[in-house]
Amino acid sequence: MRTLIRGGKALTGDPALGALEEADILVEDGRIAALGSDLSADAEVTRADGSLIVPGFVDTHRHVWQTAMRGICADWTLLDYFRGIRLTASAVYSPEDVYAGNYAGALEALDAGVTCVLDFSHCLISPDHADEAVRGLREAGLRGVFGYGMFPVPVAEPPFDTVEKRLEDARRVRITHFATDDGPLRMAVALTELGLVPFETTVAEVGLARELDVLVTAHTGSVHAERRPPEVDLLERAGLLDSRQVHVHCNACTERELDLLAGAGASVSVTPETELQMGMGYPVTAKLLERGMTPSLGCDIVSNNRGDLFSQMRIGLACERARANQPVLDRLGMPDGLTLTAAQILHFATLGGAKALGLDSEIGSIEVGKAADLVFLSSGGMSFAPAAEPVAQVVLQCGVGDVDSVMVAGEFVKRDGRMTGDAAERAHRVAGESRARIEAALGGWDALLPDPPEGWFDDVVDAMAENLAGAPAANEE
Amino acid sequence: MRTLIRGGKALTGDPALGALEEADILVEDGRIAALGSDLSADAEVTRADGSLIVPGFVDTHRHVWQTAMRGICADWTLLDYFRGIRLTASAVYSPEDVYAGNYAGALEALDAGVTCVLDFSHCLISPDHADEAVRGLREAGLRGVFGYGMFPVPVAEPPFDTVEKRLEDARRVRITHFATDDGPLRMAVALTELGLVPFETTVAEVGLARELDVLVTAHTGSVHAERRPPEVDLLERAGLLDSRQVHVHCNACTERELDLLAGAGASVSVTPETELQMGMGYPVTAKLLERGMTPSLGCDIVSNNRGDLFSQMRIGLACERARANQPVLDRLGMPDGLTLTAAQILHFATLGGAKALGLDSEIGSIEVGKAADLVFLSSGGMSFAPAAEPVAQVVLQCGVGDVDSVMVAGEFVKRDGRMTGDAAERAHRVAGESRARIEAALGGWDALLPDPPEGWFDDVVDAMAENLAGAPAANEE
Repeated sequence: MRTLIRGGKALTGDPALGALEEADILVEDGRIAALGSDLSADAEVTRADGSLIVPGFVDTHRHVWQTAMRGICADWTLLDYFRGIRLTASAVYSPEDVYAGNYAGALEALDAGVTCVLDFSHCLISPDHADEAVRGLREAGLRGVFGYGMFPVPVAEPPFDTVEKRLEDARRVRITHFATDDGPLRMAVALTELGLVPFETTVAEVGLARELDVLVTAHTGSVHAERRPPEVDLLERAGLLDSRQVHVHCNACTERELDLLAGAGASVSVTPETELQMGMGYPVTAKLLERGMTPSLGCDIVSNNRGDLFSQMRIGLACERARANQPVLDRLGMPDGLTLTAAQILHFATLGGAKALGLDSEIGSIEVGKAADLVFLSSGGMSFAPAAEPVAQVVLQCGVGDVDSVMVAGEFVKRDGRMTGDAAERAHRVAGESRARIEAALGGWDALLPDPPEGWFDDVVDAMAENLAGAPAANEE
Repeated sequence: MRTLIRGGKALTGDPALGALEEADILVEDGRIAALGSDLSADAEVTRADGSLIVPGFVDTHRHVWQTAMRGICADWTLLDYFRGIRLTASAVYSPEDVYAGNYAGALEALDAGVTCVLDFSHCLISPDHADEAVRGLREAGLRGVFGYGMFPVPVAEPPFDTVEKRLEDARRVRITHFATDDGPLRMAVALTELGLVPFETTVAEVGLARELDVLVTAHTGSVHAERRPPEVDLLERAGLLDSRQVHVHCNACTERELDLLAGAGASVSVTPETELQMGMGYPVTAKLLERGMTPSLGCDIVSNNRGDLFSQMRIGLACERARANQPVLDRLGMPDGLTLTAAQILHFATLGGAKALGLDSEIGSIEVGKAADLVFLSSGGMSFAPAAEPVAQVVLQCGVGDVDSVMVAGEFVKRDGRMTGDAAERAHRVAGESRARIEAALGGWDALLPDPPEGWFDDVVDAMAENLAGAPAANEE
């Protein structure tokens, strides 16, 4: 199967190639077989006239299962989220709900040109939940990494009543669903937050990832507290830090912790919108750049915001520039340059994400040999009147409505503004049914956030300290 | 002409009505004649099943003429903008370019559901420029306020070689284009920045607005400099401050200046994206709320970002919450509540804007007697799978692509996802031609930002001090 895409303008994301005014792209067996102008090939020709073609966006942190709770967290803090979703809503999720969330959420990503997602799936109450989570992503046709969440969702009669049973189920998932590492969907281990479980469980979780030879992802440094556990330090002391890790947020990390992450070759996922809104603090974008790290971007939760990376690029760009501008303004001066470019943030949302996932030889840019994960931005919309310098257009002018077509591994999942087949209708149906089911199981959304018990967060921090008592002493240097 | 819109769900923006699950809207002569469920009327019926209907968005600060320079400022500071656009690009603009910018830019606004814009039009080199600016907005069918810009664009042979000639032309525009104040388009006077002209010119500009009985709009407190002129104080001392004024940005205003604005009943337009990016500082949203003022929102320049208020709501919400959260995080705590709600920011983008423009009896909410300026958000997109609580959906989940139809004064300007008639095609054509013309006139976009002369900004500040020497002494209390 060979397809020749003709007539588009491409932002390849490859520094050597840059932008191509006339980009012919030959796709063969799901890969980019040739790239240039005026290619000729014995292939089916698809016209892309007037389209701006960019690499599929890569989201390195999203909890796809929460799709049915879209918008629930609009006015919530991170602690509200922790109580309302992690401890309450997740406990009523059925395997069917996890499927619905992952199916509809994966399609939402694809619709927005996000072709690859690291799905931090931490509502895996039972083996069925895990199977349905994988099925949802797979049926939607998303590329990505399924992060098997180790978090013990607090249900009355947990199917995994020991840590070992959860680890064993992850082994089963590796064998059953991810027997090889060449499919569009791969596996990761999504750690329970350090301190929410005894440190030996964390050791076991990281050990599992190494045993399964998969990526680790973890929420790190998202909570500001006097007794915040020195997460990265603890991992380092226990020999648990390495390069196949995506640490998420890291806003509360110390400089030393960020140095350790950089030193280990680990990567960091920044989720600008939830970090700013919910009380995690200003994104660490600049601190990563200072250390030679490449930030990547994530939408985090569509129970708060939409699942498109256009928004995260624009919010990420605006807030990082504001942070950098402020000291100059405080000295009653005006900045004579901006610290982050539109081209950089586009890189974070594409090749930066691919690199974080260890998939940069496979995706993240439009290059011969890479998978044909392509986003076609139609120039027909009013935000293309007129067409502008392409990077500025993508980062500051476009949105989901401009995504005309999306290809994953050479197959169209969206074409002419619509998801292919009956995918959209199915997604609407299953997500709507799931939302109703969850609301009923909760007895109404108000049940998510009753007034919290006095001092509940202090109690959590106390419990974390106890859980971490057996960890290697943190290095305070 | 009576139209009955049936089957939608409406966020009326009227506190008494709130959200209507089944909203029938009867439109007669461009106004909302009745509102309720199961209305019956002798009228043409338009189905809006599955749509979420919101009031047309109101943008209180946009330089619509810059549309052809879309994205040019992606990596620019405010000072770059000042040099590159205000002092350079604007000087090569022909009347035709102003028309093209205003026509295409007004359509961009309408496409995004922004039905009303305060257009700060400061590229009025000649009477023809002014006429063409008005024609562009009018032909596009935008509601709004045309802010006649007094700024003396630096051209070699200025048609207005005295201040009096510019004032006289504004009088002509008032009589010629805005003889009555009941049309969809009204007039304002857009002041030259205080200090860029002798203070007596500012006195004349405000005097002109009073003479013409129109709104004043002005860039205020957007520059941080040791010798920043105390703009609001100067206006106050000279008796030039009143309630029919929209001051824009105000990030650098002192607390006293904001008190004066509040006391005068003036309003403030916040443009989150350009303020954060370009170095104006964090938006003053919270400071306005503390004073009982209602902020409004603006897109400012599509030469930087797109002209939709979804983005400004989301960026405005995220950055204001981050600003409020930060002191709590600095004390190593986590915020136990957020300071601004999604409902509030939606209010700022609708009724808040209408109030700023003195049009709140006319537009800004869906109420009987108000103009039928309506935005229909289709629930068919993936970010409606599933449909959520409507306010959260509009603010955090929607974008321009969800705007299915838009009505201004009862007439559809966009329907089923497309601008009506040949508007879109014309906009693309005129904006594209204009972009090419401007680029040619400049000898290429690089001409916009040559290396600045050493100390040029200090020279500007010196000149401002001189221009303001004749102003009443500022009150330092």
